[in-house]
Amino acid sequence: MITTDVIDPPGIQALSKHARVFSTTALDEAALNQLLPSIDILLVFFWPSFLTPENLSRMSNLRLVQSILAGVNHIPFAQLDKKVVVCSNAGAYSDEVAEYAWSLLLSAAKRIVDFHNAVKTDQWTLRRTLDGKEVTILEEKTLGILGYGGIGSAVARIGKEFSMKIYAFSREPVREKGVRSFQGDKGLLRVLAQSDAVIVSLPLTKFTNKIIDADKLATMRKDAILVNIARGELVDETALYEHLKTNPDFRYAADVWWYREGRESLKTLHPFFELSNFIGTPHVSGPSGLATGKPVKFAVANVLRFLRGLKPKTIVDPAEYLVTDRQEY
Amino acid sequence: MITTDVIDPPGIQALSKHARVFSTTALDEAALNQLLPSIDILLVFFWPSFLTPENLSRMSNLRLVQSILAGVNHIPFAQLDKKVVVCSNAGAYSDEVAEYAWSLLLSAAKRIVDFHNAVKTDQWTLRRTLDGKEVTILEEKTLGILGYGGIGSAVARIGKEFSMKIYAFSREPVREKGVRSFQGDKGLLRVLAQSDAVIVSLPLTKFTNKIIDADKLATMRKDAILVNIARGELVDETALYEHLKTNPDFRYAADVWWYREGRESLKTLHPFFELSNFIGTPHVSGPSGLATGKPVKFAVANVLRFLRGLKPKTIVDPAEYLVTDRQEY
Repeated sequence: MITTDVIDPPGIQALSKHARVFSTTALDEAALNQLLPSIDILLVFFWPSFLTPENLSRMSNLRLVQSILAGVNHIPFAQLDKKVVVCSNAGAYSDEVAEYAWSLLLSAAKRIVDFHNAVKTDQWTLRRTLDGKEVTILEEKTLGILGYGGIGSAVARIGKEFSMKIYAFSREPVREKGVRSFQGDKGLLRVLAQSDAVIVSLPLTKFTNKIIDADKLATMRKDAILVNIARGELVDETALYEHLKTNPDFRYAADVWWYREGRESLKTLHPFFELSNFIGTPHVSGPSGLATGKPVKFAVANVLRFLRGLKPKTIVDPAEYLVTDRQEY
Repeated sequence: MITTDVIDPPGIQALSKHARVFSTTALDEAALNQLLPSIDILLVFFWPSFLTPENLSRMSNLRLVQSILAGVNHIPFAQLDKKVVVCSNAGAYSDEVAEYAWSLLLSAAKRIVDFHNAVKTDQWTLRRTLDGKEVTILEEKTLGILGYGGIGSAVARIGKEFSMKIYAFSREPVREKGVRSFQGDKGLLRVLAQSDAVIVSLPLTKFTNKIIDADKLATMRKDAILVNIARGELVDETALYEHLKTNPDFRYAADVWWYREGRESLKTLHPFFELSNFIGTPHVSGPSGLATGKPVKFAVANVLRFLRGLKPKTIVDPAEYLVTDRQEY
């Protein structure tokens, strides 16, 4: 197998009991080219540039691609043989990203950035509301969660302690105390229309691409809070900008961005930062942002399942993913 | 009785069954002066300016002062007869302020203000750490809570769901699953030394005034987060500024401010906003900032207990409070 990033020594050690492990950083191009036809498994973080369509076509032995990133929308499904199993790393970042989702939701609800900057730049008055806009109390309000996987359910657990009603939109019904479950297009519209705050924790697939468009935004409460910790492209960029401009009480807080030339980018089509109802951070929610720690442990454990002849977890359906040139940078 | 602020009609109605209720806004000075000697009860938000020491000395019938603010450090205890019972409104703001405490703690942990402003002003890079400073993961970390009343215990409830260890510093031992209880000076030092994040939710008394001073700050972890949603004066202003300057990984986030000429004020002795490890908001944590809604209901219910001959809740000990000219504005 090949690992394309620095895996910690215990991970390499565990894998080496079942496979010959090569790290791309230790190989030159000639050595890599010679190895490719014999490689069974790829353990990848961002998609490595040397795995061009041409090189991929030479990897006739490839059977498993395990992502260290939670999502797999950066995997070039169109260029993979049908026998290749692709596994996401869903769950590996759940608790950390759920913490981050709550930091964005609460920052937006309490207008922390706005108030901080207002006190910093003005002679502000204590206890004054901000241009008439008050802090939002979450207690007894409704929290919509789009995508009820590891992150979504971790977000819900906290929401219950804030005495919020939880509405979950997901593929499979959620049977959990304190959670109302919604499916399908109608279910999504109901969650959006009835929620005071919505957290987007969906994978980016061809079905979820721009799932939050102008029509969906129009169904939401005028003072709702929309939090995106999944993928920027789940939300239509131009529709969102127009919506924020015309609905100053609506708030959007995100750690994830739209794609420019196939990669996530901080370059936006519109001047979002001029709007006080926008909070944006540079995709820092995951643990340390590096291929170390918990996400690597999760991914290595899943590869070990495969090496031991067990069915790996978090297998994704290639048919759901876009034929795309999008990359996580 | 006299209510010094606009109480909602249901509150006035409930009180009127047991007392003659006068609202200060409906009385001129002459009428007020005539009434004062017969008044039994004061229901006050901020301390009213007409209740000067001289006027107070004429209120020989006064038996109860009920605060609508949670704290009572603005009550002129020195000028009240010993027979007057003073009640705080502890608990009335607990859930709202606990939400706010979490918004400050998570904003500081995830450096939301910092990252947002960095992306806004720079050509920032995705997933880059901020001058080498990463987001703080709260899971499995220790949360110290100073003052385990309504706010403190509400903060703890959420902390447990974030899988944090809870250390409570309080007067009385806390017997609660998942909470380690500490008392006394030594207990306080242990909580400060061992916590990754500390939330201050103490009342401001003569014992807690500047309880977080230079020595206490020095015992804390270099990368700890200190959140103050109680009263600015619980923390020594100059000691804090020096500590933040010399410990860039230490973070302070507060909704409350120090006193200038007897009133809470946004005017600080030092330029806190020049520091990226400081977050400050203008005392907006409470519900709507006005004397309406839940806090009023709480206060009215307590006055009703008194009027029915029951012992009111949240009676405070005047001996604990400073002889002070401090006012909540």
